[in-house]
Amino acid sequence: MPPQLVRVQHFAISLDGFGTGVGQSLEQPFGHAGERLHGWMKNTRWARPLFGLTGGSAGIDDALLRTFDVNIGAEIMGANKFGPPGWHENPDWKGWWGDNPPFHTPVFVLTHHPRPSIAMEGGTIFHFLNASPEEALAEARKAAGGKDVRIGGGVKTVRSFLEAGLINHMHIVLVPVVLGRGERLWEGLEDLEKDFDIEATSSPSGVTHLMFMRKG
Amino acid sequence: MPPQLVRVQHFAISLDGFGTGVGQSLEQPFGHAGERLHGWMKNTRWARPLFGLTGGSAGIDDALLRTFDVNIGAEIMGANKFGPPGWHENPDWKGWWGDNPPFHTPVFVLTHHPRPSIAMEGGTIFHFLNASPEEALAEARKAAGGKDVRIGGGVKTVRSFLEAGLINHMHIVLVPVVLGRGERLWEGLEDLEKDFDIEATSSPSGVTHLMFMRKG
Repeated sequence: MPPQLVRVQHFAISLDGFGTGVGQSLEQPFGHAGERLHGWMKNTRWARPLFGLTGGSAGIDDALLRTFDVNIGAEIMGANKFGPPGWHENPDWKGWWGDNPPFHTPVFVLTHHPRPSIAMEGGTIFHFLNASPEEALAEARKAAGGKDVRIGGGVKTVRSFLEAGLINHMHIVLVPVVLGRGERLWEGLEDLEKDFDIEATSSPSGVTHLMFMRKG
Repeated sequence: MPPQLVRVQHFAISLDGFGTGVGQSLEQPFGHAGERLHGWMKNTRWARPLFGLTGGSAGIDDALLRTFDVNIGAEIMGANKFGPPGWHENPDWKGWWGDNPPFHTPVFVLTHHPRPSIAMEGGTIFHFLNASPEEALAEARKAAGGKDVRIGGGVKTVRSFLEAGLINHMHIVLVPVVLGRGERLWEGLEDLEKDFDIEATSSPSGVTHLMFMRKG
């Protein structure tokens, strides 16, 4: 059996390193960034059906997006990815993604306000943990059935797993916009490159895919 | 005659957007960044002779570096590019580049401590101006003989010309390192992408070349 990896999948950031803007709300999950960080994604054949659309590009962006759930057995996400500020005060909140979320695996939501697990259509089960990255990863590894664990974001969650040295493979998508404000992915990660082999490839859409592969 | 453009040439920044580190000194022109931002450059056939070396790569990095002085008639640089902190107190300081600097044109150094111009070997003439970006550009345009004007850096100088809307074409080189500290190129430039068409291409060396072409 191949080793069980911890992976970040096509995580988009701006030129100035922001993975989300300021002012997150129910209407604006990425705050003032709007759809600027993810426009490249919405134009692909992989993503358009998620929005009830057909067609789209089938090039490098699409091909890389199709690795999203390849050999992924569980996801860990931060509270800000699961819902807007205050979601924990709404007992009916079940995430942004409708009845059939695109995960189809156990998903561990890191929160200071745990609640009972929620089984959704299509195999997604949301679990709620008040836990450190290491503790959450131990749970997710068990739930992943030998497959890899995706660290799904947002910025603070990816950063905390990087700081803890727990990421094996990370796919970052650099989008040519300058957001100016928000959460910086690279904050506190000086010299991160020493731990990774890094490849970059630009797409005709204008984004650049950066692959970080942990050394050794 | 083609229009006289204002250009930034292969200006290197880190993943976290720093164009230089902290602690600039005579020994460390880029501070704690050391040579990490420019290692890709030193491996090219274009750059190796500057360091008394031969050989090197002749691929995309080298080809782009060879546009360095194509149709450039003058450069504007900031005080921190011309010398380490305090250079203006040394009447004999003539820049980092020896007797024959690689510019071969008039170079306008922005400083609060102007001094008489210095003619070097090979056609470089350093002029010293206490001036705004607009004022310096007017001088440089006149001196450039109809050719383009290079904005040579450092970070604050490039940023001040971007803020003033004076850059027509900008070539940024994204280097896969996380410096953590230094001068941020994108600071204060929110929504910069609205003014530019942007292309990106990654090189096998690991850097990504970003071309900003002003719209309209």
